[in-house]
Amino acid sequence: MPRSTGRVTLPIQEGIDDQLRELVALLGADAVRNSDGTDLPAIASELVDTVYSTYFPARGDQDFALAHPETLINQYLMSERVTAPSDRPLVIEVLEGYFADQFQPCYERVERFWEVIDRTTGEVVPPQGWSVDRERGTLTIARPRAWHVYTVSFLAEQLWDSTQMYNYITNGWQDEPGRLKERPYDVRKNGVWEHSRAALAAWLEEHPEVDVVRFTTFFYHFTLVFNTEGRERFVDWFGYSASVSPEALDAFEAEYGYALRAEDFVDAGYYNSPFRPPSRAFRDWIDFTSRFVAARAKELVDLVHARGRRAMMFLGDNWIGTEPYGPHFASIGLDAVVGSAGSAATTRLISDIPGVECTEVRLLPYFFPDVFNHDGGDPVGQANDFWLSSRRAIVRRPLDRMGYGGYASLALEFPGFVARAAEICQEFRDIHDLSGGREPWCAPFTVGVLNSWGALRSWQTHMVAHAQWYKACYTYAGVLESLAGLPFTVRFLSFDEVLDSGVPEDIGVLVNAGAAATAFSGGPAWDDPRLAEALRAWVARGGGLIGVGEPSAWDKGGAFLQLGDVLGVDRERQLTLSTDRYPTLVPRHPITEDLPRDAQGMALLDHGEGAGGDVYALGPGTQVLSYADGSVRVAAKGFGRGRAVYFSGLPYSEVNSRTLQRALYWAAGREDLVEEWWTSSPHTEIAWYPRAGRFLVINNARQAVRTTVRGQGRTWDLEIGAMGCRWVEVGSRQDGQDGRPGRGGPSLPGGATRPDGGA
Amino acid sequence: MPRSTGRVTLPIQEGIDDQLRELVALLGADAVRNSDGTDLPAIASELVDTVYSTYFPARGDQDFALAHPETLINQYLMSERVTAPSDRPLVIEVLEGYFADQFQPCYERVERFWEVIDRTTGEVVPPQGWSVDRERGTLTIARPRAWHVYTVSFLAEQLWDSTQMYNYITNGWQDEPGRLKERPYDVRKNGVWEHSRAALAAWLEEHPEVDVVRFTTFFYHFTLVFNTEGRERFVDWFGYSASVSPEALDAFEAEYGYALRAEDFVDAGYYNSPFRPPSRAFRDWIDFTSRFVAARAKELVDLVHARGRRAMMFLGDNWIGTEPYGPHFASIGLDAVVGSAGSAATTRLISDIPGVECTEVRLLPYFFPDVFNHDGGDPVGQANDFWLSSRRAIVRRPLDRMGYGGYASLALEFPGFVARAAEICQEFRDIHDLSGGREPWCAPFTVGVLNSWGALRSWQTHMVAHAQWYKACYTYAGVLESLAGLPFTVRFLSFDEVLDSGVPEDIGVLVNAGAAATAFSGGPAWDDPRLAEALRAWVARGGGLIGVGEPSAWDKGGAFLQLGDVLGVDRERQLTLSTDRYPTLVPRHPITEDLPRDAQGMALLDHGEGAGGDVYALGPGTQVLSYADGSVRVAAKGFGRGRAVYFSGLPYSEVNSRTLQRALYWAAGREDLVEEWWTSSPHTEIAWYPRAGRFLVINNARQAVRTTVRGQGRTWDLEIGAMGCRWVEVGSRQDGQDGRPGRGGPSLPGGATRPDGGA
Repeated sequence: MPRSTGRVTLPIQEGIDDQLRELVALLGADAVRNSDGTDLPAIASELVDTVYSTYFPARGDQDFALAHPETLINQYLMSERVTAPSDRPLVIEVLEGYFADQFQPCYERVERFWEVIDRTTGEVVPPQGWSVDRERGTLTIARPRAWHVYTVSFLAEQLWDSTQMYNYITNGWQDEPGRLKERPYDVRKNGVWEHSRAALAAWLEEHPEVDVVRFTTFFYHFTLVFNTEGRERFVDWFGYSASVSPEALDAFEAEYGYALRAEDFVDAGYYNSPFRPPSRAFRDWIDFTSRFVAARAKELVDLVHARGRRAMMFLGDNWIGTEPYGPHFASIGLDAVVGSAGSAATTRLISDIPGVECTEVRLLPYFFPDVFNHDGGDPVGQANDFWLSSRRAIVRRPLDRMGYGGYASLALEFPGFVARAAEICQEFRDIHDLSGGREPWCAPFTVGVLNSWGALRSWQTHMVAHAQWYKACYTYAGVLESLAGLPFTVRFLSFDEVLDSGVPEDIGVLVNAGAAATAFSGGPAWDDPRLAEALRAWVARGGGLIGVGEPSAWDKGGAFLQLGDVLGVDRERQLTLSTDRYPTLVPRHPITEDLPRDAQGMALLDHGEGAGGDVYALGPGTQVLSYADGSVRVAAKGFGRGRAVYFSGLPYSEVNSRTLQRALYWAAGREDLVEEWWTSSPHTEIAWYPRAGRFLVINNARQAVRTTVRGQGRTWDLEIGAMGCRWVEVGSRQDGQDGRPGRGGPSLPGGATRPDGGA
Repeated sequence: MPRSTGRVTLPIQEGIDDQLRELVALLGADAVRNSDGTDLPAIASELVDTVYSTYFPARGDQDFALAHPETLINQYLMSERVTAPSDRPLVIEVLEGYFADQFQPCYERVERFWEVIDRTTGEVVPPQGWSVDRERGTLTIARPRAWHVYTVSFLAEQLWDSTQMYNYITNGWQDEPGRLKERPYDVRKNGVWEHSRAALAAWLEEHPEVDVVRFTTFFYHFTLVFNTEGRERFVDWFGYSASVSPEALDAFEAEYGYALRAEDFVDAGYYNSPFRPPSRAFRDWIDFTSRFVAARAKELVDLVHARGRRAMMFLGDNWIGTEPYGPHFASIGLDAVVGSAGSAATTRLISDIPGVECTEVRLLPYFFPDVFNHDGGDPVGQANDFWLSSRRAIVRRPLDRMGYGGYASLALEFPGFVARAAEICQEFRDIHDLSGGREPWCAPFTVGVLNSWGALRSWQTHMVAHAQWYKACYTYAGVLESLAGLPFTVRFLSFDEVLDSGVPEDIGVLVNAGAAATAFSGGPAWDDPRLAEALRAWVARGGGLIGVGEPSAWDKGGAFLQLGDVLGVDRERQLTLSTDRYPTLVPRHPITEDLPRDAQGMALLDHGEGAGGDVYALGPGTQVLSYADGSVRVAAKGFGRGRAVYFSGLPYSEVNSRTLQRALYWAAGREDLVEEWWTSSPHTEIAWYPRAGRFLVINNARQAVRTTVRGQGRTWDLEIGAMGCRWVEVGSRQDGQDGRPGRGGPSLPGGATRPDGGA
């Protein structure tokens, strides 16, 4: 039995009542939930203080969906790219390559909503130049130009909700009688909104046992498209392609005074991936959709509150329009947000959300048969992986609650997993209980992450399918993954913000990390000379700048990295090979103390996939701290009263994370901080709680380690078990050097006792 | 003593007469020469049939140079990039970082010839905004914009010829009394031209022993700039930066009707590197300079001819304006060209030069103390390296002559080297004697290499400092290095040519190989839709296309590789990560038969540095033949009646060269040719001489190999010694399947007997 209880939500289901009782006790759970495809058992309210229920505003009522096929949710799609082999009529089957179970074309006002583009010239083929055959699902271009490439951008209708399709396929529901392929409906369409309100009201009446309505989610799914074989074809967790409709586009035009084109969504096939520097039109659409979703979601939340329940949102699935760091999110009035923790960065993405009383992470693995099987599945290994990742973040910014998702019956088949989960739950509660309700000490300056998105996409850079690993991304994602567990206040800034108001006062170091031409490096933002001007001036006044990969990349005026003069490096693109390079190699430097050494004694950074090519120092004033294969990996340089550090890549690792910490200290001119609350072993990290007078050291390694802690001029030698942690009493509480208080309001439900408010 | 003699030129010098006699006999040399810094001994004419002498039209007369300091050769330079820390006057020392022994500023009409640019905005600062202090060598910008980056482009005067400086420093001449730092003078400047003509005439009178005047070279040196420490700072073997002068710029303006700016030469610091897509202005300048140099050089050559001597040009050093594949070269009327063979491609660069009677390669190593020393120098190893590289090319397109350069006295210290050189000379002569004076059989279609330069830079792609290895280049240079020894007629085509006249009839396969934004891939050339249109149509009609690296790269219309639809692949730039890829993997294919295999049985191409990032297949129709780390390395695809092959990189290796040969056959629809004159061992290559009725097999490996030759339905099993070769009589001569005849005219001097004409 656990030392304490509470703060934990478990998924439950019908038919295993006794086992559930045991599981709830073992994990100290105080809340339960159902999942997509399971129902709450009658004993739910007996088991715990609080009962959550999933609620699907966009697909929960399939009788309604089938009776109102005109309300299907739309989506913008682009056909395959088709090369015209002659100037004779070119027939394009618009849905070729897509999943027939997922989409059908929407033929409403095709002249307005469809668009044919000659991609070889960029010219739009006017509607008079093409015709649509609704029987065959084809579009014919009457007189194409031979050997030009054409695409058709078109509105489709979604016949199947993307997440439910994923769950259906993953769990093999085709063999279970009664399973529907659930159709989504659009609250903008005729009658849907009125029905949705009424349905929620009725459902609340019918479900008095539910304390918390877990919206999963609201109205529009992120972009998730399947191919002809039912395999994933396109996935963008941030994608707005399925938030469109003739109604929405008309409303946008009426409000904004200009009409959006299909190309504003299809974006030449890039579909406004978050890696694309965002267009004005797309930013407007995000704002337009977010305001609409927030207003409607608020009405549903109000209904929930009016009936004495609490409202929680799952951050995922049909979450489009609810960007939690956007300006409209708080207006929804949610009590809580729950999201999946696939990494430290995604854990911080949840825990840092402003404007809600309670945040909860759904830890992984999800109790699905892809992991919970006896044919090579390794639920314990995955639990350890994800806990070690998430714990780093939880220590820095405690979440109110944790939980799991999926089918409890599956988890119960793995007693080893259940035992490990019980340990994790206890460790999670301990962080709350022993920290004194305060966040740990942070460095006395804020780290600003600078990109095209800024605060809107806090903790969300370099993400494609949520926390999924991508070869192209890990080299950059490591920056946030490191920061998520380091003792810094982190703030996300957009280029526009810096242009409008300058670098905020609290920022000590700015980080620009990304590949050329992406929103994270900035792309065309660097064409504006005011940006480089502002940042040069800021660094010269004493600021710190850290660039990773291809920071400030924009081909202009003989430089590729526009802040190359500050960073001291530039990226070779086979255009400056004539210039000889004589880098100033600096084998020892405070930044690189933890890195391994090459045969020449130089520090050797693991830079992942690197910067996409070679990097050279621009002159002898650049200190090259890591240099391999004729290319700079780490460089440091003074610029006026400030400092700059360059990394060619920074995938997450224990040692890279510490190296980033050192670089942040150095760039801020505070390398002295390495003496304060620092652990000798890179496997370990420390959190110091001055008011509680104790610190926590976590061991991120799979083996026991010895580590020495330095702080306040004292040292502690500690041995910490594999993946373990140690709380150490310092003996004197210090109010002066305090961390921020934790989330102010009561958690939902919080602690081990039932909170006020009857949730 | 050698089996035969002739076709070999040796460098000689004073003071070692007896040893020279022995050396000439051993190597079968029939010509001798002096080098920069050595004089011909009196016995020169006794030793051999033909005596060459170096002649330096741009620096040969230092008395004249010192007496006429106003005739120094100019050069366009760019200052360091200087960031203005405020809007107060910004002082830029224009020569900072340059070698004071090499340059001084040229202050003639600074308002016209100097240019100050704000690189942060791209704006030119008008001359009223700056002033020049000639005492201090500084330029002051009166009111810069704070935190903008400025550069000064300025004319300098060359105080020291670049090659002579290199030789001086490399050989430590500072310790030899009487050695001058030779100043170059410009034939455009007052009196120089008249002096040059007269000096050559007088010199010819004074040197009756000289049969061949070896111009080294004419008037303008390629760009070779040294830094403050006398180390190389910038080297571009194609650079025209030192072909400028106020006189030339004025003449250009008068003729072309527009004035060139400093920026037309300085090019934001890229200095019109051949990797830069060439501007119209730069192309005009090349043509302007080439016409001028050709006209003046012709006059010198005429002088030589008038006195019964022959004229040879060294392709290098002061060769700017003599591009040998340009339209003006033949008009010079040279008898011969000699150039350095650093690779197979540079050997072909010499041997394929049109419009001269004789081509000669100077084999490496050069007899200089950097290689010929007893402190780790390895002249035999280098001789083997370079011979194996060059021999592949010589077999395909025989050179008339070979030779060496430098100081014979150094070579004589290494008897092992002399012995190896004797073998090489004999092997060289045998190729001439046994081939029947014909080139070997070639595939029945021409390979076209397509880039911005076309024929002008035949065999000269991806070169920086001649054949020097560059990490950024070898991945692409391997294409030409392979082709230089393969049985194909190779032709270099420019985009403009294809746009103007289409793909020539004889072309079977086009190759576009290069990194994005370079002249070799094409950069902005691909913005013209007519180019993709023409090439798609041509492939669809049955043509073959091979793309390497980032072929046809230009970011437009949702594609990065504009011919991606033909090649079946595109380059990932973190903008299409949302799209799932399911490549069609094809483990066995005629193209990849020689490649090693990975654990999954897929072919594994060594692609060098690769394409600068990941490559993905665009659909199931693309056959992915090599796939590693989630990225396509080789792909094949049909397109209409044609075929396309993609390689992510193709550094030269025996197996990559054969793989390119297979790909060329396959792309042309002639994979049947793999049965005809093909060797089983990738270490070996074959040349078939139908008229002579024999073939030559060369072994490129350092060990003996067994190989089976297939041809005409027969097979031959051969064993060939390390680095050796074998001539095999087939028994029947075949006139039908003949190779091209060799160079028509008599060589200079040719064969083992003294040619007509008294050279």
